[in-house]
Amino acid sequence: MHEEHDRAAGPDTPVIPPLGEHLTSPRTRNAMLVQQEVLAAAREHLRGEGFTELLPPLTGPVTDPGGRGAKQLDVDFYGHRYKLMTSAILYKQVSLNAFPKLFYVAPNVRAEPPETASTGRHLFEFHQIDVEIAGADRNGAMAVAADLLVHVVRRVVENLPDILRALGRDPVFFQELLRGGWERRSHAEVVETLTGMGHAQDGGSEIDWEGEALVSHKADRPFFVTDYPKGSRGFYDREDPERPGTLRNFDLLAHGGYGELVSGGERRSDHRSIVIGIRESGENPRKYDWYLEEVRRGIPSSAGFGMGLERVTRYLTGLDSLWQVSAYPKLPGVVTP
Amino acid sequence: MHEEHDRAAGPDTPVIPPLGEHLTSPRTRNAMLVQQEVLAAAREHLRGEGFTELLPPLTGPVTDPGGRGAKQLDVDFYGHRYKLMTSAILYKQVSLNAFPKLFYVAPNVRAEPPETASTGRHLFEFHQIDVEIAGADRNGAMAVAADLLVHVVRRVVENLPDILRALGRDPVFFQELLRGGWERRSHAEVVETLTGMGHAQDGGSEIDWEGEALVSHKADRPFFVTDYPKGSRGFYDREDPERPGTLRNFDLLAHGGYGELVSGGERRSDHRSIVIGIRESGENPRKYDWYLEEVRRGIPSSAGFGMGLERVTRYLTGLDSLWQVSAYPKLPGVVTP
Repeated sequence: MHEEHDRAAGPDTPVIPPLGEHLTSPRTRNAMLVQQEVLAAAREHLRGEGFTELLPPLTGPVTDPGGRGAKQLDVDFYGHRYKLMTSAILYKQVSLNAFPKLFYVAPNVRAEPPETASTGRHLFEFHQIDVEIAGADRNGAMAVAADLLVHVVRRVVENLPDILRALGRDPVFFQELLRGGWERRSHAEVVETLTGMGHAQDGGSEIDWEGEALVSHKADRPFFVTDYPKGSRGFYDREDPERPGTLRNFDLLAHGGYGELVSGGERRSDHRSIVIGIRESGENPRKYDWYLEEVRRGIPSSAGFGMGLERVTRYLTGLDSLWQVSAYPKLPGVVTP
Repeated sequence: MHEEHDRAAGPDTPVIPPLGEHLTSPRTRNAMLVQQEVLAAAREHLRGEGFTELLPPLTGPVTDPGGRGAKQLDVDFYGHRYKLMTSAILYKQVSLNAFPKLFYVAPNVRAEPPETASTGRHLFEFHQIDVEIAGADRNGAMAVAADLLVHVVRRVVENLPDILRALGRDPVFFQELLRGGWERRSHAEVVETLTGMGHAQDGGSEIDWEGEALVSHKADRPFFVTDYPKGSRGFYDREDPERPGTLRNFDLLAHGGYGELVSGGERRSDHRSIVIGIRESGENPRKYDWYLEEVRRGIPSSAGFGMGLERVTRYLTGLDSLWQVSAYPKLPGVVTP
C-alpha cells in the first residue's frame, strides 16, 4: 500500500515501515517513553503554575486560518460543513473568562503539501501543548514558554538518561539551554542574517523551514524570534500599536537545526480590530459568526502559544524526522494507517 | 445559529448556551475541575501499574466498526477516503508487541442519530480512557477497570469535596462503590430482569440505553454485565470457545441510572478467527487490509476496555447530561461551535 504511494511522492519521501515494525523498533519505543515524560512534565509544571487543562474540540464551523499553506479538512456535521482543528486558538480565547490560565494537549490535523513529507518537520496529525493566559503580554507568554521548555528538558535529562543515551543523544547538548540567557532576535534581523548567508528569505513572510534550520544550526541554545510582519500569521495576532505592520508575536526556535518549537503572541481581543484583521487577511467575517458573537460579549486580552509536542520530542531525542517520534505517523501525502 | 437547529431537533433537545456563557457557569467550571482530576488520577494509577500512555491516531483507512448505529465520518487524506476514529481499538491491538500494557486518552467522534441528543448520554465528540493488556483475559481486564474506577472516584472524593458539594453531589453516593464487591450479571440475566420490568429488551443486542438506565437505577454500586451475544459488538470481541454465540466481553454499568461507563472484552488475535469475524459482521475483509497484514505478522492475545471520560465525569458530578461535562459540547445534530 505505502510502497506504491512512496514512489508517487518522490525519491526523498521517507519509507515508513509497517506499524507493528515501527512500534517495536527500540528507537520508537524509546521515543515514546520520552514523549510520555514530556507530557507528564508539562502537565506537572503547568498545573503547578495554576493552569487548568481542558480537552479541546476536534471539529468546528471554522478553524485557525493561520496555517502556512496547509489545507483545512472538511467533516460533515449533520449536513453542515465543519473543519478539523488545525489549531484551537479561537476556543482558547473564548475560554479565558472561565479559565484565565489554561492549556490543551491538542491533536491537530493539517494537510500540508506532499513536498513537505521529506522535511522531517511536518506531519498530517500532530499535537500541540497549547497555552493561553488572560491579561498577559508577549513577555509573559515568552516567559511561560521558556520555563515550560526548561522544565521539560530538565526532567527528561534527569529521569531518562539511559534512554537518551540509547538514542545517541548526549545530555551535554542541552547544557547551554539549561543555563538560560536565551537571545531575542527580531524577524527583520533573522531575515538579514539569512540574506547574508545567501538564503533568499522573503521579508514579509514567516521564516521558511530551510531558513529556520539554517539559523537554528548556528545556535547553541534556543532563541526567540519576535515581531513577525503583519500578513505572515493569523488575524488573531495583535499588531504593535507603535509599529503598524509589525505583530507582537514570537517563535521559539531550537538550536542544532531543529527549528521552530513554539509559536505564540499577544492576541487581538476587541471586536473592531478582529473584524479588521479578518478582512485584511482576505476572509469574510461572517464565516467567524460564533466567534465574533463571543468577542462582542467580551473576551479578555491575552497572550499564549502552541508548543509542538512532536517537535520537542524530536529535539530531545535527536532523531531525524517527526515521523520517528510519532506512534502512528502520517506524513503529508504518504498512505499509512 | 443553534436556536434554529434546536427547533429542528425536537422539543426534548437541550438548548446549549453560547460557549462563553456555558464555560463561565460555575457548574461547567466545577465539572471541568473534576474532569481534570479524573485524568490526573487515571494517569497516575495506570502509569503506576506499568502502563505506557500513547497518543492515538485521529484518522485512518478504517475505524472501529462496533458503534451502535453511529455513522462514521469521512476525511480526505490526499485523495484517499479516511475515517475519523470512532475508537482506536485496532491500533491498540497492533501496538501491544511494543507496549504490552498501554492506554490512550482518546478523542473519538461518532455521528449518533439526532434522536440521541436528548438522552443525556451521547455526544458527537467524546473521550475514552482506552486500555489494552497483552496476555490478559476478561477477568484481568475487569480487575484493571474496577481498580481504575475506584482509584479515580476515591481521589475525586478526597481531593475535591467542596466542588462535589457545590455541584450538589453527596460523597455518600459512592460509599458502597468504595467497599467493592461489585456484582457480575450475564447479559441474559439482565435481559430477563428487564423483560420482567416490562421493558422490551432484544436478547440478541446490546442493552439499549433505556434498559441500561433502568437496571442502573436499581443498583447501589457499579456492576459488570458479561457475555454479550455475538453480533451485538465489533468483530474483534472473542467468542467463548465453550459457548459458541457468546462473547467473552463485559460492560461496567454505573449505579444511580448513569448506565454504561466501561465497555471491554477479550479480543480475537488469530488471523483466521478475525477474518471469520469480519465476514460474519457483513463486512469485506479487504477493507481491513493493513490490520490483517499486521495480524498475519502476529499480534498477542489481549483484553482491554474503553472507559468513557465524560460518562465517568457525569457520574461523579451527578449532572443530567454529558454536554454539561464537556468544555466544548457537541450534541448529535445540534449546531454549536
